[in-house]
Amino acid sequence: MHPKVSVYIATSLDGFIARLDGRLDWLEHDSGGEDYGFQNFFDSIDTRVMGRGTYEFVAASGEWPYEGKRTIVLSSTLNDRDVAEHLVGKLEILSMEPVDLVELLAGAGARHIYVDGGITVQRFLRAVLVDELILSRMPVLLGSGIPLFGDLDADVQLEHVETQGFPSGLVQSRYRRYVPLSDSSRGGI
Amino acid sequence: MHPKVSVYIATSLDGFIARLDGRLDWLEHDSGGEDYGFQNFFDSIDTRVMGRGTYEFVAASGEWPYEGKRTIVLSSTLNDRDVAEHLVGKLEILSMEPVDLVELLAGAGARHIYVDGGITVQRFLRAVLVDELILSRMPVLLGSGIPLFGDLDADVQLEHVETQGFPSGLVQSRYRRYVPLSDSSRGGI
Repeated sequence: MHPKVSVYIATSLDGFIARLDGRLDWLEHDSGGEDYGFQNFFDSIDTRVMGRGTYEFVAASGEWPYEGKRTIVLSSTLNDRDVAEHLVGKLEILSMEPVDLVELLAGAGARHIYVDGGITVQRFLRAVLVDELILSRMPVLLGSGIPLFGDLDADVQLEHVETQGFPSGLVQSRYRRYVPLSDSSRGGI
Repeated sequence: MHPKVSVYIATSLDGFIARLDGRLDWLEHDSGGEDYGFQNFFDSIDTRVMGRGTYEFVAASGEWPYEGKRTIVLSSTLNDRDVAEHLVGKLEILSMEPVDLVELLAGAGARHIYVDGGITVQRFLRAVLVDELILSRMPVLLGSGIPLFGDLDADVQLEHVETQGFPSGLVQSRYRRYVPLSDSSRGGI
């Protein structure tokens, strides 16, 4: 059985996941304890995939809130010697195409993969490998930043599942990959 | 009293209002007669402002569904001689800054202005003149196209009013300009 591939990510209303210098100040707000479904989502995944940018952001934070989840850093420039000391043994650095990574993880029994980070998400979207997109929009326009979405080889049709607005002004929409009725197989777009 | 400035526009999930060649095929769908509130919105406006791009698109369509609405084409390159014959007398071509246009229209008694078109919307957003943003997202990623949002001089904070999902997969969010509680005057961002 193929694992499910999910993206759970927040952007500004104009589609940026971070300012150009990586800052997330625009994302910080008093949510009144609301976690926008993140813990439930995180509990449902067994594998996390991120790119170099997200890895470096996490490594610099000094925290590692991913215990118990297999963590892959997908990068062609990092290698094992680059791993921060406190993270040795907690992650694997791999360089491969997203489709091959999903195959590898499927073979290892992964059931639910969480893909994170701008370029990595773009690579998975381009390869039409994202089964679920949980997109939270903050009510702010930044004007510039690191975009979530990028070039594609073809349109990617999605199916809207549900949308929820929160008191903070965050609006979270859940989409799933559109599969034509006449083709129920995986990758049917 | 200042007129209210509204944007009512649809984008792909990755923020494009049209393909690079202007095509809107991705926007066409069987809405089952649902107009996503457009007629109500249109009935509430007295003035429409568009840029050259939208004007040319409308002029080429041969239709003019704006009877009874004052229509401004905001352009520094068009002039009255460029107006398509069937549209002479139906629109005004003006070249000025958005803030000056709003002043002009306010002086003429405008109450509700509908700003349309990518670059024109960007100019009004950048000048922090948009009071209401009604944004509809289609559940498709295009990868490239004409973007709705552009550069800004500073963050633009918005307040989420409501979001509605429709059976077609379109999700429409309504935002208004955020005005800090300590400053109830216009332009308080």
